Amino acid sequence: MQTSERSSPDDGSTRTTRNVLFIMCDQLRADYLSLYGGRIPTPNLERLARRGVRFDRAYVNSAVCGPSRTSYYTGRYPASHRVTWNRVPLPLDEQTLGDYLGAAGLPLRLLGKTHFVPDRAGLAGAHFQLDPERRRLFEEGGFDPIERYDGHFEPASGSPYRDYLQSRGYAGDKPWTDYVIGSRAEDGSDASGWLLRNAALPARVRAEDSETAYLTQCAIDFVTAQGDTPWALHLSYIKPHWPLKAPAPYNAIYGPDDCDKPIRHACERENPHPVFGAYQRLEESVSFARDEVWRTARPVVMGLVQQIDDELGRLFDHMERLGRIDDTLILFTSDHGDLAGDHWLGEKEYFFESAIRVPCIVVDPSNQADATRGKVSEQFVECIDMVPTILDALALDPRTHRVEGRSLLALTRNTAAAAAWRDCVFGQLDYAYREARIFLGRGPNECQGWMVRDTRYKYIHWEGYSPQLFDLQEDPQEFLDRGTDSALCAVRKAMHQRLFDWLSERKHRATETLEQVEARTHAHERMMGIQIGKW
Amino acid sequence: MQTSERSSPDDGSTRTTRNVLFIMCDQLRADYLSLYGGRIPTPNLERLARRGVRFDRAYVNSAVCGPSRTSYYTGRYPASHRVTWNRVPLPLDEQTLGDYLGAAGLPLRLLGKTHFVPDRAGLAGAHFQLDPERRRLFEEGGFDPIERYDGHFEPASGSPYRDYLQSRGYAGDKPWTDYVIGSRAEDGSDASGWLLRNAALPARVRAEDSETAYLTQCAIDFVTAQGDTPWALHLSYIKPHWPLKAPAPYNAIYGPDDCDKPIRHACERENPHPVFGAYQRLEESVSFARDEVWRTARPVVMGLVQQIDDELGRLFDHMERLGRIDDTLILFTSDHGDLAGDHWLGEKEYFFESAIRVPCIVVDPSNQADATRGKVSEQFVECIDMVPTILDALALDPRTHRVEGRSLLALTRNTAAAAAWRDCVFGQLDYAYREARIFLGRGPNECQGWMVRDTRYKYIHWEGYSPQLFDLQEDPQEFLDRGTDSALCAVRKAMHQRLFDWLSERKHRATETLEQVEARTHAHERMMGIQIGKW
Repeated sequence: MQTSERSSPDDGSTRTTRNVLFIMCDQLRADYLSLYGGRIPTPNLERLARRGVRFDRAYVNSAVCGPSRTSYYTGRYPASHRVTWNRVPLPLDEQTLGDYLGAAGLPLRLLGKTHFVPDRAGLAGAHFQLDPERRRLFEEGGFDPIERYDGHFEPASGSPYRDYLQSRGYAGDKPWTDYVIGSRAEDGSDASGWLLRNAALPARVRAEDSETAYLTQCAIDFVTAQGDTPWALHLSYIKPHWPLKAPAPYNAIYGPDDCDKPIRHACERENPHPVFGAYQRLEESVSFARDEVWRTARPVVMGLVQQIDDELGRLFDHMERLGRIDDTLILFTSDHGDLAGDHWLGEKEYFFESAIRVPCIVVDPSNQADATRGKVSEQFVECIDMVPTILDALALDPRTHRVEGRSLLALTRNTAAAAAWRDCVFGQLDYAYREARIFLGRGPNECQGWMVRDTRYKYIHWEGYSPQLFDLQEDPQEFLDRGTDSALCAVRKAMHQRLFDWLSERKHRATETLEQVEARTHAHERMMGIQIGKW
Repeated sequence: MQTSERSSPDDGSTRTTRNVLFIMCDQLRADYLSLYGGRIPTPNLERLARRGVRFDRAYVNSAVCGPSRTSYYTGRYPASHRVTWNRVPLPLDEQTLGDYLGAAGLPLRLLGKTHFVPDRAGLAGAHFQLDPERRRLFEEGGFDPIERYDGHFEPASGSPYRDYLQSRGYAGDKPWTDYVIGSRAEDGSDASGWLLRNAALPARVRAEDSETAYLTQCAIDFVTAQGDTPWALHLSYIKPHWPLKAPAPYNAIYGPDDCDKPIRHACERENPHPVFGAYQRLEESVSFARDEVWRTARPVVMGLVQQIDDELGRLFDHMERLGRIDDTLILFTSDHGDLAGDHWLGEKEYFFESAIRVPCIVVDPSNQADATRGKVSEQFVECIDMVPTILDALALDPRTHRVEGRSLLALTRNTAAAAAWRDCVFGQLDYAYREARIFLGRGPNECQGWMVRDTRYKYIHWEGYSPQLFDLQEDPQEFLDRGTDSALCAVRKAMHQRLFDWLSERKHRATETLEQVEARTHAHERMMGIQIGKW
């Protein structure tokens, strides 16, 4: 089993973690960034990476916002936390980073998106009651929001960003719809931000008032206001997630010829795996299969990412001025990638690299991490590692009976645990809520996909269908599905066994700590006076 | 996926289920009973079976009280409810039969044992509060106890059975220790009920005041008091579970030559599977390997079972007199079997038939079940089937998004679902709390065993070890472990795949109903105004 070992002995380090800044982008694939050899210049992320470790093989445990974020926030695989899709309520027994930090007296503040939904029906059904302050935290999955803002519908009346927009002169009842994602066509008519055909038109909002700039400014103000009081902040950007709309000048920095062409091959449309085939039929896949769509969308994504890098530069400058860059654990990542036409698919979800590989930087302020600053790690990272990393940096109880990830400080500090690191990553896709299920004629509980990826192969078990297999060495672009290739039978068997071991060895028993199990092992007589089988 | 289909249309049946009587014994293996061709005459169970269906292949999903009972009470596999050992608290998000019946206005009353432990630490950690009445139900896993009595330690001061014993003249502070499980040796000294050497000595309690008789009388009184008001009762006997102690005359009805010899063979001690070998080293296994131990213990077990049958006769007579036998769904089973020397093991837990196969009778009062009365079903039954059976009989919401079992009314009424019944049963053993783990030098999260049994084979996957395989047709006594026999490689592969499918297809996503999933499938635009991937 994986364990989260403590990497922060009290060794007289002069720099220790007092604050936590957990930055997340939404739908940001790693390979777009110059940080990862891509086309978008990201000087500020590169600057951040020089202070810490950049992880080259960081993967999400589900390429869907809800399950991925819940893994980021609980440190547990989707099959363990059971939020297998967007807006599936978190079961009442789960605990989050916010719960852990809150119990330690360090509220986990939030700026931006979580996609979290509490299990209100479960709470009512169990007749559990909460006092108003606890209810507030329950509603936010343990986060203590400065501002919760999920960014895919008009903010509610009275919400801070809406108020801000109105105070800045964006008039009317729908400032988000009309300005933040709204544009004017050349003829002066409204051009909906929901439609990809309009993506390249500038948002009617000024860049300084856009979501990315607003959230960054809120973060700057928060860090300033905290002064020397320790803090933990989840700065969770909305972008470059849809609606695809960038303010000037970011809408027009890049054009159709500046972006990568989709990674796709005609052979992928010939007799595809049934689930892959069903995904190719989804509306966004059909759209992104057309050249004009990706040639319009991708440059806008690039601009949105450029803006994020610019804004992060402002934030990092500010933290440097305040000295916060030296006592803050900084994590940078994304909840999943973006297919945008790769493999004839739109959006994410499917287990291709474009969807599951994300950027990941960890800046560990401890002196123990000095030797790894600016290094690139090839070790596999999963979403579930963020919670144990943060608990470790703050020297809090690692909750090893629940948390399934590993502290990345083992890698920033090159501790003994680094030598026995994991050699694969796992993923899950529950497509019950997707039209793909209807195309395939399956029931809501018949739609599980399970992935394991090591350095060489990616294997996907699909409930009810033959598996998929990609040889990432011979076929790094994942064009050739070897799922039924008899030459690779032994590989599939070995990968399938890894999935079995993973499924069967997750942390099912989580209501007792490992210490409690140890204390109760063979203790019936000592603890309860019970004698069994004695003559 | 398994579904619990409704088997009770409103078809004008003259007899319907108004009451539920769910009888459980503790540690009662099926093959001891004349009902199942065994040596103990059980005329009253046979009489019950003539009214309903006797299931010949009923199996528990874990042969340990806690996990098995939690499967009986939640309708979910141990890996789903996560109570993998005795006294592991039930996670806060789980729901029980008591919760389901209580929500329908039919409190699930309890007489006897549940082995239930609430997750008090989880409740406190989540800051959930409960009003006193709900707290009472939470403490009992949704049961509304007439009397909770687990029967393996001295009842607390003020508890009804203790008060009863004292009112009946059993003096002193420890009436259970001194009388119920207490004996006098021939020399007049105390002979502890905990020691097997004393098992055949009569309890100092009179038979009419023993646990089995007391609980039966409480049930009779309860049924009487209910009059025509519908009720649901879990009558949960302590026996024939240890401490092995029977009151006269039951202690002496059977002698050493009346009982079955253990099912065991010398070859099982030669180079056994590592986990099997570790279990053979447990104290109770070493005890029961000795002839004098099983020859002492087994006749007492037989007497205790005889007493249960006698007492059930009293209860059934009473129900007949009141007419309750005609409007009550009656379920009879046990939480697991008993090895008692079989395979050189004591107690239960291990996946041999003696431990996992239990008696099971279902009496369905509906006219729709008339055609199956007195029949024997060869279909596989699991613990998880009791909740859906009861919900079905009462025409309550089957909770198919959570409940993993099937309604046995499909078999009593021979509905369409009977034609597509399951063809195997599953089991789990988490031996983390057992000295076997220490013998094997394993950590608390490295001790899972997973079993699948079909009509021909029993396959066991052990974490960290090679599997076990038994051919139940060639080797019904399970002496020959074919776990590494190259001739059966294809069988093991197929059985392993069944385990994979089972593990991966359990009902992880349980905070939304299947209807909610259907309503939210491909509904982002309709329900939330979100447009994805539109040109």
